[in-house]
Amino acid sequence: MSQSPGEFDLIQRYFNRPAPDTVVGNGDDAAIVRFSGTCTVAADMLVAGRHFAFDDNPRDIGWKAMAVNVSDMAAMGANPRYALLSLALPDINEPWLAEFSEGLFECADTFGVQLIGGDTTCGPLTIALTLMGDSAAHPPLRKNARIHDDIWVSGVPGLAALGLLVKTHKVNLPEPEKFRCLRRLDRPVPRAALGKALDGIAHAMIDISDGLLADLNHILQQSGVGARVGLDALLQKDDAFSKVSSDIALNAIAYGGDDYELCFTAAQSDRLRIQAMQDLFEFPLTRLGTIERNPALTIAVNQTPVRLTGHGFDHFKPS
Amino acid sequence: MSQSPGEFDLIQRYFNRPAPDTVVGNGDDAAIVRFSGTCTVAADMLVAGRHFAFDDNPRDIGWKAMAVNVSDMAAMGANPRYALLSLALPDINEPWLAEFSEGLFECADTFGVQLIGGDTTCGPLTIALTLMGDSAAHPPLRKNARIHDDIWVSGVPGLAALGLLVKTHKVNLPEPEKFRCLRRLDRPVPRAALGKALDGIAHAMIDISDGLLADLNHILQQSGVGARVGLDALLQKDDAFSKVSSDIALNAIAYGGDDYELCFTAAQSDRLRIQAMQDLFEFPLTRLGTIERNPALTIAVNQTPVRLTGHGFDHFKPS
Repeated sequence: MSQSPGEFDLIQRYFNRPAPDTVVGNGDDAAIVRFSGTCTVAADMLVAGRHFAFDDNPRDIGWKAMAVNVSDMAAMGANPRYALLSLALPDINEPWLAEFSEGLFECADTFGVQLIGGDTTCGPLTIALTLMGDSAAHPPLRKNARIHDDIWVSGVPGLAALGLLVKTHKVNLPEPEKFRCLRRLDRPVPRAALGKALDGIAHAMIDISDGLLADLNHILQQSGVGARVGLDALLQKDDAFSKVSSDIALNAIAYGGDDYELCFTAAQSDRLRIQAMQDLFEFPLTRLGTIERNPALTIAVNQTPVRLTGHGFDHFKPS
Repeated sequence: MSQSPGEFDLIQRYFNRPAPDTVVGNGDDAAIVRFSGTCTVAADMLVAGRHFAFDDNPRDIGWKAMAVNVSDMAAMGANPRYALLSLALPDINEPWLAEFSEGLFECADTFGVQLIGGDTTCGPLTIALTLMGDSAAHPPLRKNARIHDDIWVSGVPGLAALGLLVKTHKVNLPEPEKFRCLRRLDRPVPRAALGKALDGIAHAMIDISDGLLADLNHILQQSGVGARVGLDALLQKDDAFSKVSSDIALNAIAYGGDDYELCFTAAQSDRLRIQAMQDLFEFPLTRLGTIERNPALTIAVNQTPVRLTGHGFDHFKPS
């Protein structure tokens, strides 16, 4: 009895790559894997028309689906190892699948992730990924921020938001800023190495998927603390911000989603150690402010407290 | 800065239950868990309009989403422990969510599963679950069937298919068969305890989600063997089959999906031991036939080879 073409052939053709680092890989009801200690696990779902456009490059979609999950691992200081992909597809579009799968594996290979299972079905284009990895020795939980901690952020949050404004024709940027912002939106690079390097240094950490202030606020709320944060330094970190109005720039930095940078807190005594890490990575590490006892978030530009008009990304707001 | 109502409140309200058996539970970028040995992991995706109807009871949908994943664990002889739920919702329908969540947790509690994470987003109604558990000592992989093995099946495959025919008004059944078949379709009971009890006894095992013969065929293909199977015994296992034509009954047994029974192979020397297990469970264990060297699947009814007209469920066929 031969299978009719469909689900099984598809999986075989595009997603069944060897996963040598497993006890039991693809091909059964489940996979079997071993972790060196505890297992850190996260799941993310991307929906067409919401997290990406239907006509986005499928290679970028594949990359991004994997990248946002690697970013969750990075925010836990974990070492990503295994992924399960559940994929709903409206039809069998082989060129699309081939490119999507290449983008997905490109990201997986870059970060040492093996695809070990999942599900494929017919339905509105939806990508659900689960990622598992070896845990950090000292997981930087959101509740672990301490009063007087420095607040740090990796890279330049806000560039992906500018990329989205460019893509939706709401803002014009010259090259090379245009390319750089679009690239940040379509091909986010999760800070996996930084996340691991900060094991034992970062007290609390989160990845900025919903916007810098919204995600920092998760740390503050769960730690029962407040913060004083300045955004000036970030305005200087990329020329793109000088090519748009300061209101657009500040809102992109403060509230723009999809950056997949890491925001973390650490002891002031580790300040030099963290600054020195910048030499290891190709992106800046910027000290934004300080954790305070008073549970409020005060934002300053040019040392003056400001009231920003935007808000963090909410997945149920109409886009 | 308070969160606007939306994703975070929803997750908090309906899905954030205590998960005491974790190192780090809900509320961070990822959860952290520990397995006693290796980890068995599987993912399944259910799409509205495909795997369930939009107007199905949300409590049943929640139960079934969890049950089909527990069934994957059962087929690996694993002990299910942790789940991640990624959920795309077209809108915030609180009564629906409350009932869905109750059905999901009812099944999770029944089988000892804790929900430790996931994702919620706006999109066409789609449910993606990942389940992780402690592995069996001897995982019954699909490739492990041996020549001369007995072929067994739990429960009565075909009842869920009859339930679907009733639900779609293609077949009429009297009570109590009608209720029983609909119940099997809407509230499948994964054979978790049986799966674990067969550790060390079952050589190859699979859960029947796509149809008895389609799933048995996965075992045959991956083991490089064939089988001779009789379906008479199953026809006698439920009165529902005598209330429909023999063609409908046989096709339901052979090709009906959604049963979530276990099909497994075991040594003939374990025959009495397996028969004795029936006393432990409230469902039959039926010996269907024998694994053979010749890689073909021969099906017999009344000792006569038959040619059935149906086919296994293919997720890309139009429903």
